[in-house]
Amino acid sequence: MTCVERRLQDADRLDRIFHPEHLAIVGVSAKGFGFGGGILMSLRQIGFEGTIYPVNSRGGEIAGMKIYKSVDEIPARIDFAIIAVPAEAVPDALDACRRKGAAGAEVLSAGFSEMGTPEGIALEERIREAAGRGIRVVGPNCFGIYCPRSGLTLLPGPDLSRESGAVAFLAQSGGMAIDFSHIGKWMGVRFSKVVSFGNGADLREVELIDYLGDDPETRVITTYTEGVEDGPAFFEVLRRVTRKKPVIILKGGLSEAGGRAVASHTASMGGSRVIWEATLRQCNAVQVKSLWELAQTSMAFAMLPERVYRGITVAGGGGALGIAACDAAEAFDIEIPQLEPAITDAIMEILPKPGSSAKNPIDVANPHVPPHILKDVLLTAAKDEKVDLQILIQLFYHYKPMALFSGQSVKAVTPFRELAAAVEEVVAVTGKPVILVAPNIKQGLESLDIEEMLREARSAFLERGIPVFDDLDDALRAVSHVSRYRARKEALERQT
Amino acid sequence: MTCVERRLQDADRLDRIFHPEHLAIVGVSAKGFGFGGGILMSLRQIGFEGTIYPVNSRGGEIAGMKIYKSVDEIPARIDFAIIAVPAEAVPDALDACRRKGAAGAEVLSAGFSEMGTPEGIALEERIREAAGRGIRVVGPNCFGIYCPRSGLTLLPGPDLSRESGAVAFLAQSGGMAIDFSHIGKWMGVRFSKVVSFGNGADLREVELIDYLGDDPETRVITTYTEGVEDGPAFFEVLRRVTRKKPVIILKGGLSEAGGRAVASHTASMGGSRVIWEATLRQCNAVQVKSLWELAQTSMAFAMLPERVYRGITVAGGGGALGIAACDAAEAFDIEIPQLEPAITDAIMEILPKPGSSAKNPIDVANPHVPPHILKDVLLTAAKDEKVDLQILIQLFYHYKPMALFSGQSVKAVTPFRELAAAVEEVVAVTGKPVILVAPNIKQGLESLDIEEMLREARSAFLERGIPVFDDLDDALRAVSHVSRYRARKEALERQT
Repeated sequence: MTCVERRLQDADRLDRIFHPEHLAIVGVSAKGFGFGGGILMSLRQIGFEGTIYPVNSRGGEIAGMKIYKSVDEIPARIDFAIIAVPAEAVPDALDACRRKGAAGAEVLSAGFSEMGTPEGIALEERIREAAGRGIRVVGPNCFGIYCPRSGLTLLPGPDLSRESGAVAFLAQSGGMAIDFSHIGKWMGVRFSKVVSFGNGADLREVELIDYLGDDPETRVITTYTEGVEDGPAFFEVLRRVTRKKPVIILKGGLSEAGGRAVASHTASMGGSRVIWEATLRQCNAVQVKSLWELAQTSMAFAMLPERVYRGITVAGGGGALGIAACDAAEAFDIEIPQLEPAITDAIMEILPKPGSSAKNPIDVANPHVPPHILKDVLLTAAKDEKVDLQILIQLFYHYKPMALFSGQSVKAVTPFRELAAAVEEVVAVTGKPVILVAPNIKQGLESLDIEEMLREARSAFLERGIPVFDDLDDALRAVSHVSRYRARKEALERQT
Repeated sequence: MTCVERRLQDADRLDRIFHPEHLAIVGVSAKGFGFGGGILMSLRQIGFEGTIYPVNSRGGEIAGMKIYKSVDEIPARIDFAIIAVPAEAVPDALDACRRKGAAGAEVLSAGFSEMGTPEGIALEERIREAAGRGIRVVGPNCFGIYCPRSGLTLLPGPDLSRESGAVAFLAQSGGMAIDFSHIGKWMGVRFSKVVSFGNGADLREVELIDYLGDDPETRVITTYTEGVEDGPAFFEVLRRVTRKKPVIILKGGLSEAGGRAVASHTASMGGSRVIWEATLRQCNAVQVKSLWELAQTSMAFAMLPERVYRGITVAGGGGALGIAACDAAEAFDIEIPQLEPAITDAIMEILPKPGSSAKNPIDVANPHVPPHILKDVLLTAAKDEKVDLQILIQLFYHYKPMALFSGQSVKAVTPFRELAAAVEEVVAVTGKPVILVAPNIKQGLESLDIEEMLREARSAFLERGIPVFDDLDDALRAVSHVSRYRARKEALERQT
């Protein structure tokens, strides 16, 4: 078999893992307790599309399904298995699944190398041996795979989105995998695949990034990495894959204390901050500093055209907001250029007076400027050649007094749907993206109605393809990540 | 009059301004429109404790109160006036208020130097002249004064807190003043005085900081500054006052574009980033980068003992969280020291197994560890001499499945009240502060119940004096501001 043939075969096996038609869950108690029962219920709740075969040596029934006494008893060839038996029974379970045709299995069970005991380390070695006999293993000590298209879900993930999208996420940490999957659901990040690979006895970041680099379902690859097994291979695959699509990396454990914590979490090596950061930069990987930044950056890469955004406009109510925008933009190497005098004049014609200003940042003077005026402002500002992208800041909570005055709810009086439609049109006409920033300064118990309205507003904008951020700094940082990645990619392309 | 006598007289005048018994509102339309009618309604709603005298040349009545046709007609000596007449009528109104005994007045009206017109600049000069005849002026082009103790409030501030507290805030920008006042309400920052001074024709930051430095109601001074009139005087007062209490400064307009935006917002000069940052550091002022950081840092200074916090513990569920904590702590010069082996062992005795770890960060392994166990963990960890402060991360949203399972609401099943009581006891027993970090990854429309629970939890902790943050990075940054201020203050005291 040639190298290319083997890679194709590997990819084919991974495809079967992510989209299994026949799935065994090994270690399902009839009482529904434990990881096995939990993942079974999650899969039924999320609507997994294949056939599930629960397995437990005691047999019985669960939720109207027959429990098979062994993997061998399953009356079909299986594609994938979820294994939740005690650690010492895992290697045999893997062999049984392999004999039943499984391309792979995820091992949710803990009790391996993360224990730091000789027994745990030996058991993990036996998993690796079982994998070597011809079954790919995700885990052990992981939360498994989430694939919205097939309906596979993470261990405690019955309520994740079934909408498929452009972003893949790889993490050793199960907590990170489930947290990002939840954040993505409301932040507008849709996933192709999420893999929590825990101790990574077999499948790990290098091979998975390689696979995702060619995966047509994935446009943006993201990872949370505590430590890598094979540094040179990791950086080599990054260098290669970032020429095709962005790879966003949250590296945990770069501090001295963090490295110590990594060791007791997943037993891998942390590594020096300076070396990591320099190497990631050389590979044109996008390094982020927190899970929130990872999520925001993923949204930006998934929703914005991949371009270099040099100049932007910032439009919103309040002079101090505009000043804050300028200060933040400078920190992220983004320019807020003065608009052409003719364009400034045209915007001033549109805006209410006094109090407005249209040099850029554009101060629209009051928070109740109606959507059709904001639309005209954005359409006019986009005519300036120096403008690549526009940010609209909306302080929607200012509609609350209007709601109280009119006896209506705040979501009834806030014109966020009209504004979302107007902004969508602006983007279509100008070809320049618009981002919404909608902060909330009213987070008291008496303002839950504002929170509800803001969440509906977020959905309305996201549905029309407009990225939404709570905070201007976060928006600018995310845009700068897209810009820098694209600029460096172009520079590398020119070199070759 | 000696210099000391004059300062005492000035302070006495400012006290009358912040706590007026007799207040004129000049420019109240009987129809209730405009700034005058708005501030009148706000003052009644918030429960201003003095007597209000509405004034309008047409007379009439508003909300059951007589409107006086002129300031001269008011049948009492007034302490303070709120002026909301058209710009050109402001100087005469100030003279009338002065004759009626007013110590000061705030001018909400716009139309002065911020217009950039010769007329506007000349009118502002006339305000300065009127002030020179013996009445202190806040504004023009401002939102006025908020003083919870007396019930004075900002222009659109009918719903601010009446609880008085340690933090004073000074801002040219009315938007910043109202935003911080609202954020403070739910974030647990209570104010002594908030002053939006707009164009600052008379009273400005230098004199106000000087006054607040001696104000027994104020322990923490905060400002949003776009530009200062007299740089040397500003830095001199900072240097002097920071020896007594912290001064936290958000400086807007440090970037090139930001400086341009400052010019069109309040017509003051921005200034170079390098010079500002170096000078603020020399003065031991605390520089923050955003309104959110300003609010969080104010909370930390108001709620934490002023100490140098060198070593901290971080306890919470999930290994990845602990690693993120270490990485962030390093960036803020805070140490997360390994605990003494005996203490680690004692904590391991208490914690559920497997999955927990107690070297620091302390991984409590699951998000449902009950309050009494967490209390024991914190009590035990505090015994280590290297620990000055403890951070408890709680992922309260994990109680949602439990709520669904038991048919109760999420706020009924989440033991945040018990935990708040337990943490308060830990602080009392150990003398070492504890901070709660409660992130929320579930911000979808279907999770408003989690948001409500988290807001109640925030209140429960704040009421017991425990600072609460959404995000660990924010908490660490706020702690580091307190530490650095205190360390530098001690160093300066040793020098003199």
